[in-house]
Amino acid sequence: MTDNTSAALVRADGRAVGDLRPVTIERGWSAQAEGSALISFGNTKVLCTASFTNGVPRWMSGKGKGWVTAEYAMLPRSTNSRMDRESVKGKIGGRTHEISRLIGRSLRAVVDMKALGENTIVIDCDVLQADGGTRTAAITGAYVAMVDAIEWARGRKFIGQKAQPLIDSVSAISVGIIDGVPMLDLAYVEDVRAETDMNVVVTGRGLFVEVQGTAEGAPFDRAELNSLLDLALVGTTELAAAQTGALTSRDDA
Amino acid sequence: MTDNTSAALVRADGRAVGDLRPVTIERGWSAQAEGSALISFGNTKVLCTASFTNGVPRWMSGKGKGWVTAEYAMLPRSTNSRMDRESVKGKIGGRTHEISRLIGRSLRAVVDMKALGENTIVIDCDVLQADGGTRTAAITGAYVAMVDAIEWARGRKFIGQKAQPLIDSVSAISVGIIDGVPMLDLAYVEDVRAETDMNVVVTGRGLFVEVQGTAEGAPFDRAELNSLLDLALVGTTELAAAQTGALTSRDDA
Amino acid sequence: MTDNTSAALVRADGRAVGDLRPVTIERGWSAQAEGSALISFGNTKVLCTASFTNGVPRWMSGKGKGWVTAEYAMLPRSTNSRMDRESVKGKIGGRTHEISRLIGRSLRAVVDMKALGENTIVIDCDVLQADGGTRTAAITGAYVAMVDAIEWARGRKFIGQKAQPLIDSVSAISVGIIDGVPMLDLAYVEDVRAETDMNVVVTGRGLFVEVQGTAEGAPFDRAELNSLLDLALVGTTELAAAQTGALTSRDDA
Amino acid sequence: MTDNTSAALVRADGRAVGDLRPVTIERGWSAQAEGSALISFGNTKVLCTASFTNGVPRWMSGKGKGWVTAEYAMLPRSTNSRMDRESVKGKIGGRTHEISRLIGRSLRAVVDMKALGENTIVIDCDVLQADGGTRTAAITGAYVAMVDAIEWARGRKFIGQKAQPLIDSVSAISVGIIDGVPMLDLAYVEDVRAETDMNVVVTGRGLFVEVQGTAEGAPFDRAELNSLLDLALVGTTELAAAQTGALTSRDDA
Amino acid sequence: MTDNTSAALVRADGRAVGDLRPVTIERGWSAQAEGSALISFGNTKVLCTASFTNGVPRWMSGKGKGWVTAEYAMLPRSTNSRMDRESVKGKIGGRTHEISRLIGRSLRAVVDMKALGENTIVIDCDVLQADGGTRTAAITGAYVAMVDAIEWARGRKFIGQKAQPLIDSVSAISVGIIDGVPMLDLAYVEDVRAETDMNVVVTGRGLFVEVQGTAEGAPFDRAELNSLLDLALVGTTELAAAQTGALTSRDDA
Amino acid sequence: MTDNTSAALVRADGRAVGDLRPVTIERGWSAQAEGSALISFGNTKVLCTASFTNGVPRWMSGKGKGWVTAEYAMLPRSTNSRMDRESVKGKIGGRTHEISRLIGRSLRAVVDMKALGENTIVIDCDVLQADGGTRTAAITGAYVAMVDAIEWARGRKFIGQKAQPLIDSVSAISVGIIDGVPMLDLAYVEDVRAETDMNVVVTGRGLFVEVQGTAEGAPFDRAELNSLLDLALVGTTELAAAQTGALTSRDDA
Repeated sequence: MTDNTSAALVRADGRAVGDLRPVTIERGWSAQAEGSALISFGNTKVLCTASFTNGVPRWMSGKGKGWVTAEYAMLPRSTNSRMDRESVKGKIGGRTHEISRLIGRSLRAVVDMKALGENTIVIDCDVLQADGGTRTAAITGAYVAMVDAIEWARGRKFIGQKAQPLIDSVSAISVGIIDGVPMLDLAYVEDVRAETDMNVVVTGRGLFVEVQGTAEGAPFDRAELNSLLDLALVGTTELAAAQTGALTSRDDA
Repeated sequence: MTDNTSAALVRADGRAVGDLRPVTIERGWSAQAEGSALISFGNTKVLCTASFTNGVPRWMSGKGKGWVTAEYAMLPRSTNSRMDRESVKGKIGGRTHEISRLIGRSLRAVVDMKALGENTIVIDCDVLQADGGTRTAAITGAYVAMVDAIEWARGRKFIGQKAQPLIDSVSAISVGIIDGVPMLDLAYVEDVRAETDMNVVVTGRGLFVEVQGTAEGAPFDRAELNSLLDLALVGTTELAAAQTGALTSRDDA
Repeated sequence: MTDNTSAALVRADGRAVGDLRPVTIERGWSAQAEGSALISFGNTKVLCTASFTNGVPRWMSGKGKGWVTAEYAMLPRSTNSRMDRESVKGKIGGRTHEISRLIGRSLRAVVDMKALGENTIVIDCDVLQADGGTRTAAITGAYVAMVDAIEWARGRKFIGQKAQPLIDSVSAISVGIIDGVPMLDLAYVEDVRAETDMNVVVTGRGLFVEVQGTAEGAPFDRAELNSLLDLALVGTTELAAAQTGALTSRDDA
Repeated sequence: MTDNTSAALVRADGRAVGDLRPVTIERGWSAQAEGSALISFGNTKVLCTASFTNGVPRWMSGKGKGWVTAEYAMLPRSTNSRMDRESVKGKIGGRTHEISRLIGRSLRAVVDMKALGENTIVIDCDVLQADGGTRTAAITGAYVAMVDAIEWARGRKFIGQKAQPLIDSVSAISVGIIDGVPMLDLAYVEDVRAETDMNVVVTGRGLFVEVQGTAEGAPFDRAELNSLLDLALVGTTELAAAQTGALTSRDDA
Repeated sequence: MTDNTSAALVRADGRAVGDLRPVTIERGWSAQAEGSALISFGNTKVLCTASFTNGVPRWMSGKGKGWVTAEYAMLPRSTNSRMDRESVKGKIGGRTHEISRLIGRSLRAVVDMKALGENTIVIDCDVLQADGGTRTAAITGAYVAMVDAIEWARGRKFIGQKAQPLIDSVSAISVGIIDGVPMLDLAYVEDVRAETDMNVVVTGRGLFVEVQGTAEGAPFDRAELNSLLDLALVGTTELAAAQTGALTSRDDA
Repeated sequence: MTDNTSAALVRADGRAVGDLRPVTIERGWSAQAEGSALISFGNTKVLCTASFTNGVPRWMSGKGKGWVTAEYAMLPRSTNSRMDRESVKGKIGGRTHEISRLIGRSLRAVVDMKALGENTIVIDCDVLQADGGTRTAAITGAYVAMVDAIEWARGRKFIGQKAQPLIDSVSAISVGIIDGVPMLDLAYVEDVRAETDMNVVVTGRGLFVEVQGTAEGAPFDRAELNSLLDLALVGTTELAAAQTGALTSRDDA
């Protein structure tokens, strides 16, 4: 279904099918959290904080292992029309739960819990502005925040000087098929039109942590699946570079 | 990582890596619902009912389209140790939300909402006994229940005699990598040991509706992903046949 | 109001006024619970499980006594038209609360908590299909499940070899007055027409544990109350025999 | 088990076994409600209000019938040690639900819904001080409040001048067996010691609306059941007289 | 805006602008609570109880200090038209929260937590009848209940014989501007018409604990603010005297 | 208690007692909302959005008037240690409710609801970073967002070209007494030490909308109250200028 011409196709915002939107990572945005990053994928902006606490929940205690968990939420007016607050509704919706769990799993996949020791990192990803790809931006920014929280903890000796809790880096991107053409990093207007939507979480070494493909319209075949994975890996390679850029920039300052 | 020897490997319950557990589908188990099936994948037993209602939720009304939605739940003692009821806790957990949404999307993928007309089908999948693969059994059984609910509605002329709301059939299966070996249809003891766990939803024609792969332990590479997809397609082909068997058996009676 | 002719009266399903519907008890239905029974009173089917846990809730601890509690729920499509799930509504309704409490009290009435020791039995009664009398079927089936859970615990020495936690057996049945005629074991179509509805919980020795009579239509007099109690005792005597049958059958196998 | 000597037995508060505690009914206590009564059974004090509204809930509309419903609650420090508020806990307990439903059913049993017309009466019974028998005091006081609310509505022509919505009066009392002796109107210290506890709701004509007997300790036999019913009828006859007294007193003023 | 004539202005209920409504305090109304008062400001009636418990919440433990907290609620038919119960709605409204917090702060302002020792006083203020000024009546009555609870505790030696937990007394009153005229102690009909509404909490020595002025209609200027404070101090001086009266009356009995 | 020397006193962050922290207002921060402002008072940062909707809630409909309401919330890691999310807890705390209501009242005080017409403005104030004064920053920023939402609506003719919904501007500031010295705009470290804490909401013309003074430690006298009001008016005058600056700046661009 994809063909030679697709690479040349121009999208509403001028991107080629394999282009990411502009990515910025404002590392250390928060003066309060142990680690933080305000990440943007185009108009999507997510504030990611990593809160480090000495100790683990009681049910994990005494095993010499740490814990990483995540919560995702959207501000009520991050979207084009205002949504009710989940706190006001008194319950958390299925989508929020699903994304919080995805972020948590994605980050745990690159953490050695023994090396983390009995410490807890809580990641909060709050979407300040939404234009598609909020969960993938959240994972990508959360990794940066987590790295800084771990370094903060090392500085306070909550983690040993030689401990290596980070096994790898992790980032995520969305891909999808629109009018039969696979595309990278869907903006909201593209996302609602996509026949198939896939979120792919990949480590810095190029291994998969999560592959979540959903046929929103027509089911997809194996060739389409492969095209989407190819595109996703292009995107996560760029995101890994952006993470490295953000994490090294301040060290030079 | 998979090799010639893996096909010969024998699992705890005596299966080969590419074997499903015994599948049974008791179609029409419920005397109350318009469609129903009690499905078992080995010791996993899920009661699936399809409730057909004339009309759609108000926000969908007037568009000439139907709606299909699903709810999944586990009985408190479906599992090895008793879980608290979500009704008692006063809220639905993230996993329940996630699976309910997955079942709903999977079934909608094979329904032509225009052909369904302004009618609603609510699928309930209640796990009576759990031994791994409850969400995939739920999808597979729910399809059978939905077919009967649609036929029930046709009999009462809620749906036209020539309307074809069903585009395709749908079934689902889990696959995973254990000690480096891809395996089909994980039982609970296998599921907890899997490095990678994947749920694959496939139509009767062999197209993908959902691919949800998660690295619970080590991230996975593209070759492993491909092996898992190969196995899954073996499983869903067998499940599609079991569905056809269940749906035709009674017609002969 | 009852007269000589009432005994000869034939009900919609062909029963005489003093007949129970067919009763079946599938003991050990669940492969997970310490004790279980799938009981049916005609089309009413309730899955009863008994979960045995060593220890008691903190507020009871150190008194050398055990605890038995129960939870009742209906599957959303156990009834003729689908009900919303209480987990989705986020709260448990008054009727559910009322029945859960009734089941718990009924079972506790035949347990010697000292002989049970500091152990907890949680009874779950989930209605898979409802056609009247679900609470009485639940109590009757739950007793069978509880017996097996106690024997399971004795096998693991959580309960002493000579301890006798069971003082008596317990079963329950509904009775009601329809068009002035007292009847036993009301099916749903009868229940909605009854002027008076009574649930009676009786021990194997024929003593009352609960008598709950409600005038849904006209208030009732003492003679009617007595007729209802007479009928109920006929029913619970038969149910006690069915329990004994279920509990002895497998021992012979 | 009851014998000749029991009638002579003296209780902690000096009553004979067949004595009620002092009953007072302050009719019209509330300046806001259409009908109200502050009732006391000894130290138990319940504020009952009846709120009359023109119209019925939407699901009842157009049937020419009215509706009566009730809510029961206890102030947090109505009891000897403070209870948490159900509003703070965010959910209503099973006991509260059970009693609210009992009060509603009891009052509906003496109302002709056709004669009430499409009007709603909401009864609120708030326990200001609790010393046993709160639900029976609530029913007894609520009847007085309801009568006044109906007369209020007649005055405003929401109910026709000749309509007779009240079929009968209704009151309720508790009875129980303590140390083998049946007793009337249990105070809290008696209630906690009772082997059997029964709440009986009776109309002014002496017919039963509800009989709810529970073996808290040992199960009870038919003779005991009969003794309890005899005592209850003594009590409700006196309560009916007290209601009449309250309802006629002010008319003379 | 206030002028010479305003003092002569007569209000709907015949009061002058600087008059309180009749105040009554029934000290010791509850037979259950350690301290209690049924207070009325005209038709506003609030039952205030003070529950004394030895010990403090865990998070305060070990600091040698006590804790005072308060909960406020309205009976559903305390008002002219019935309100839904917050327990039924499953959540507490903002107004309730706000007033509960105000009462708690007001009482804590006159308690020396060290002198109270590790003891907790929970104040419950339940509005039985509402006609404006419920929060100010609640604070004024709660103080009386708290004094008695402290003396109760002293009698049981939970508090030392010489400990002086009470630094001062506290009472509260509402003031407001209606048609440009500042008035004391607004009844409900006045409250809804007020341009500015202010609640003032004042100690027995005349110091401010809380000043909460709100422009419901037009914003107010400094002169108006000063007039309102002047009036409020007139009111709280009278209330302090009423509290003293209530607290000394029974000692003489 | 305040004296000549207090003006010269230097605070932890180098400010004089009558100094505000640096104030910045990023007008139009959000690309989604009809009006928005990211406001900072020193390290306190609040994102304020104003969502304009045509129409009003049903209970207000047909009166020709508009409605303005507000919701306030804090991100979980806006504070020094992480707070649980209110959405996760399933209920909104008292402090959140109190502040949401305060913001709503403050903005409504400067809006002519008739001139607004049947339109609704929902203000969301989300605290991204907290260092004291979050509610006052929220009110000050929300006014700017609201102005832009009204102009947006005028551009789309939801509001008439000559309608003047804005009566005045509004801003707010905190003041407090620390070690006997009244100070303006308390940072968090000051707030926790303050004996008295006051939030003052003032219109552009210098009239009071809200005065909320609370004795956290010792009660305060009239002279202190007056000093605090004097300081507050200094602050709100500066804030009104900052609002004007933000609202005019972009017009020139």
